[in-house]
Amino acid sequence: MIPIISVVGRSDSGKTTLIEKLLAELASRGYNVGTVKHDVHGFDIDKPGKDSWRHSQAGSRLVAISSPDKVAVYEKVARELSLDEIVTRYFYDVDLILTEGFKREAKLKIEIMRGSKQELLSPRAQILFVASDIDVTDAKSDEPNIIDLNDPKKMVDIIEDKVLSRDIPQVSLYADGKKIPLNKIMKPMVLNTFLGLIASLKGVDDPQDISLRIHRRRQN
Amino acid sequence: MIPIISVVGRSDSGKTTLIEKLLAELASRGYNVGTVKHDVHGFDIDKPGKDSWRHSQAGSRLVAISSPDKVAVYEKVARELSLDEIVTRYFYDVDLILTEGFKREAKLKIEIMRGSKQELLSPRAQILFVASDIDVTDAKSDEPNIIDLNDPKKMVDIIEDKVLSRDIPQVSLYADGKKIPLNKIMKPMVLNTFLGLIASLKGVDDPQDISLRIHRRRQN
Repeated sequence: MIPIISVVGRSDSGKTTLIEKLLAELASRGYNVGTVKHDVHGFDIDKPGKDSWRHSQAGSRLVAISSPDKVAVYEKVARELSLDEIVTRYFYDVDLILTEGFKREAKLKIEIMRGSKQELLSPRAQILFVASDIDVTDAKSDEPNIIDLNDPKKMVDIIEDKVLSRDIPQVSLYADGKKIPLNKIMKPMVLNTFLGLIASLKGVDDPQDISLRIHRRRQN
Repeated sequence: MIPIISVVGRSDSGKTTLIEKLLAELASRGYNVGTVKHDVHGFDIDKPGKDSWRHSQAGSRLVAISSPDKVAVYEKVARELSLDEIVTRYFYDVDLILTEGFKREAKLKIEIMRGSKQELLSPRAQILFVASDIDVTDAKSDEPNIIDLNDPKKMVDIIEDKVLSRDIPQVSLYADGKKIPLNKIMKPMVLNTFLGLIASLKGVDDPQDISLRIHRRRQN
């Protein structure tokens, strides 16, 4: 799984602005980053009458629109997807994913605290650091790490140190859209069998992101 | 690879309308279908100032927006993606993909011909059938199969017979976003090794769509 960090905070605390700063700093260090925005109110991705909207209305489960410089994909879902599901279905070839919102998911968090000391929204154990504009000179040592909201360099130093330096291969297996847990024995077995199998193939030279898809015909 | 059929025809020939009819008929027979729309003019998926637009502007390579009933994903690309790339990156758990446009790609085609006999846009070998409103009683036997434009049942009969009944497991392997060709020896070896490996796992019972993703840390 690609590492995920959620930027959380009360409304209007500046989550999007902080994500912009982090994206710029991460890009300057050569990282490929993707983002996920949580939109509780729903959104209109497409306009009634447009061809792609008509596909969706007529029953297309997943509509993609492709142009020379961008691709958009639009999918109706029966229930809200988890971050893991979103990441597994759509993300590839990124080093890190930042999310805006998703405070209820048990992911690593950057929590924004503005103006004055407030109750934290996230469990302590999930907090990578608190990004704040308050004076932190009186911070107690047992408190989470508090970083100046305007110091994205220091934040990305922490992200590099604590998140991006983990050198653990991630293996995810999905069958018919459902995540299949792999235990400590199966995970290296799947990884090593598979890497061994493809090692001799032309065009594969120490690949970092590998995806295998198998589609068998359903017997109707 | 999930089977792909492209609906092609001159502009205003009714491609979207035909896709709507096919989607309804395929859904009534229990198939899960996805669609891809080719948009040469580009499109605006998002509005300046919106959070997800700001993520993209600030350098997020892939932006996802999640709400309780839908998910949208938006990606800037350096060059136009091929159909195979779009399908591999984004589609899962569908039995068939219909595309609107993409006449230059060497995929199976349904070509619309309206009003009068015209030169076909697609090479004969790619044409599954021609959907037409012209009188076809004088059709020569060496011509492609011509089906009444308003007979989606007959069209889907052909799609079922010629496309959906193929019982060949599809195996696609991607490394760092690049398709790795598997030859006739490697394809069953990868498929069988992998199916054997996961056969004993809990939660896997004759899976039809299997996806394995491996993400290793790039050494920066």
